[in-house]
Amino acid sequence: MKICKKIVIVGLGLIGGSLGIVLKQKRIAQEIVGVSRKDSTLREARRRKSVDWCTKDLKKAVGNADIIVLAAPVNTIIGFAEKLANSAPKKCIITDVGSTKEKIVRAFESRCLNFVGAHPLAGSEKRGVHFAQGNLFQDSVCILTPTKNTSRGSLLKIKRLWQAAGARTLALAPEKHDAVLSLVSHLPHIIAFSLVDILPTGWKKFVPSSFRDVTRIAASDAQLWQEIFLTNRKSLAGNIDKFIRALQQFKAMIQKQDSPRLYQSLKRISVKRNRL
Amino acid sequence: MKICKKIVIVGLGLIGGSLGIVLKQKRIAQEIVGVSRKDSTLREARRRKSVDWCTKDLKKAVGNADIIVLAAPVNTIIGFAEKLANSAPKKCIITDVGSTKEKIVRAFESRCLNFVGAHPLAGSEKRGVHFAQGNLFQDSVCILTPTKNTSRGSLLKIKRLWQAAGARTLALAPEKHDAVLSLVSHLPHIIAFSLVDILPTGWKKFVPSSFRDVTRIAASDAQLWQEIFLTNRKSLAGNIDKFIRALQQFKAMIQKQDSPRLYQSLKRISVKRNRL
Repeated sequence: MKICKKIVIVGLGLIGGSLGIVLKQKRIAQEIVGVSRKDSTLREARRRKSVDWCTKDLKKAVGNADIIVLAAPVNTIIGFAEKLANSAPKKCIITDVGSTKEKIVRAFESRCLNFVGAHPLAGSEKRGVHFAQGNLFQDSVCILTPTKNTSRGSLLKIKRLWQAAGARTLALAPEKHDAVLSLVSHLPHIIAFSLVDILPTGWKKFVPSSFRDVTRIAASDAQLWQEIFLTNRKSLAGNIDKFIRALQQFKAMIQKQDSPRLYQSLKRISVKRNRL
Repeated sequence: MKICKKIVIVGLGLIGGSLGIVLKQKRIAQEIVGVSRKDSTLREARRRKSVDWCTKDLKKAVGNADIIVLAAPVNTIIGFAEKLANSAPKKCIITDVGSTKEKIVRAFESRCLNFVGAHPLAGSEKRGVHFAQGNLFQDSVCILTPTKNTSRGSLLKIKRLWQAAGARTLALAPEKHDAVLSLVSHLPHIIAFSLVDILPTGWKKFVPSSFRDVTRIAASDAQLWQEIFLTNRKSLAGNIDKFIRALQQFKAMIQKQDSPRLYQSLKRISVKRNRL
């Protein structure tokens, strides 16, 4: 079902490439156009038919665009606010897939662009159009971050775009999004990185599947996550402290050999985890 | 290939049940006998043919046993030291699958039992003979913890038992085992429990796959893990501190917005994780 004529996806990595594939499958627009700076990505996107056509030329790509999806790391998305203030068609809706939202939304709204913030909770530690697949968003959640400046019609279109991609959409204010994500996503990444950091060299042979599962996401892209951590630093620092307090409570129970309380805590938490 | 006539597995949970299945498949003994206190477990073990026969009666089961494998939580294993001092045949080799080793090995050696400590790094947050499967140990590691009191012949037999089950064996002193495991296994569990603990109720809908992966093991059995944490408390407390220091280093880099150092750390760690 078509929602518009032309969608431009800027950035053809795992997220942008996968979005192109599924939006083409669902025939959501007459034309899906891709933009990438890298020749190798453009070649691979063409080979995989992730988009109808693609180019390095942002200005050329966004001509007559109805929707522009910025699928790039946080700081790169922020950098597009100025570029698009000059080049994007007036009525065009601009949206993104960035992992933090407050700074991104502010950058676009301060330039009076017709912006709808979005964050698909999908992806993995893998990166690049090579790993793109049409079912990446199937049964996932996409958080939209409308503000008082967001047009109702634009919000509805971006909602329908993500629903067509297979996601369930939820709405949160940008600040609330960043507070929630700092706990459910950014903190787990800091934890995984920290745990791998303290593994002594030579202990690889002792590493069980539990350690591998907890640290899988420590293989994530350093540049991408550096930007996420720094654009959400206040909320993240607060959650690191909260998490350290939880660890210290366990440490105290263990050192005091408070077996009944330790058992009760573990029991309560394992029930909570089983319900997730 | 037979290594002896009779093996008795005491405890028919995920580990004991799976071991029974694979040792029967490999025809490693003439007779594989199971012991469990629970009627439902005995019924299920019979239905799945996890062992040749099984009983509640420990004394009856261990008569003429060549090898007794204690597949139970740590404190239950320790409790068997006294029971088996009276009932186990003189030449019988006693071994176990406990997740901490120092206290277990001491309990058996102090009673001059012919003991070989073992810890298969396999299993999952699942529990019970219902989940038992013959390939559970395939390509896993089993750590053996011989001491100066361990007979060479006994060690070799237990090594061949685990190799027949599909595991690669490594040897570590019991204290070294506990130090290593407190970091590669017990700490990840404390981390997972702590992270689930601080998730606010009602945030389930925002939980992405990264949070699920990091906390999968928080669904583990409370009693089992309480015993593991308490029997390895000194080493575990030290590693909780070490991990908190790593978290605090990240927090400092994030708060100072030390982007180059943060990037370098994340990059170094993601390379390290990819090599695991």
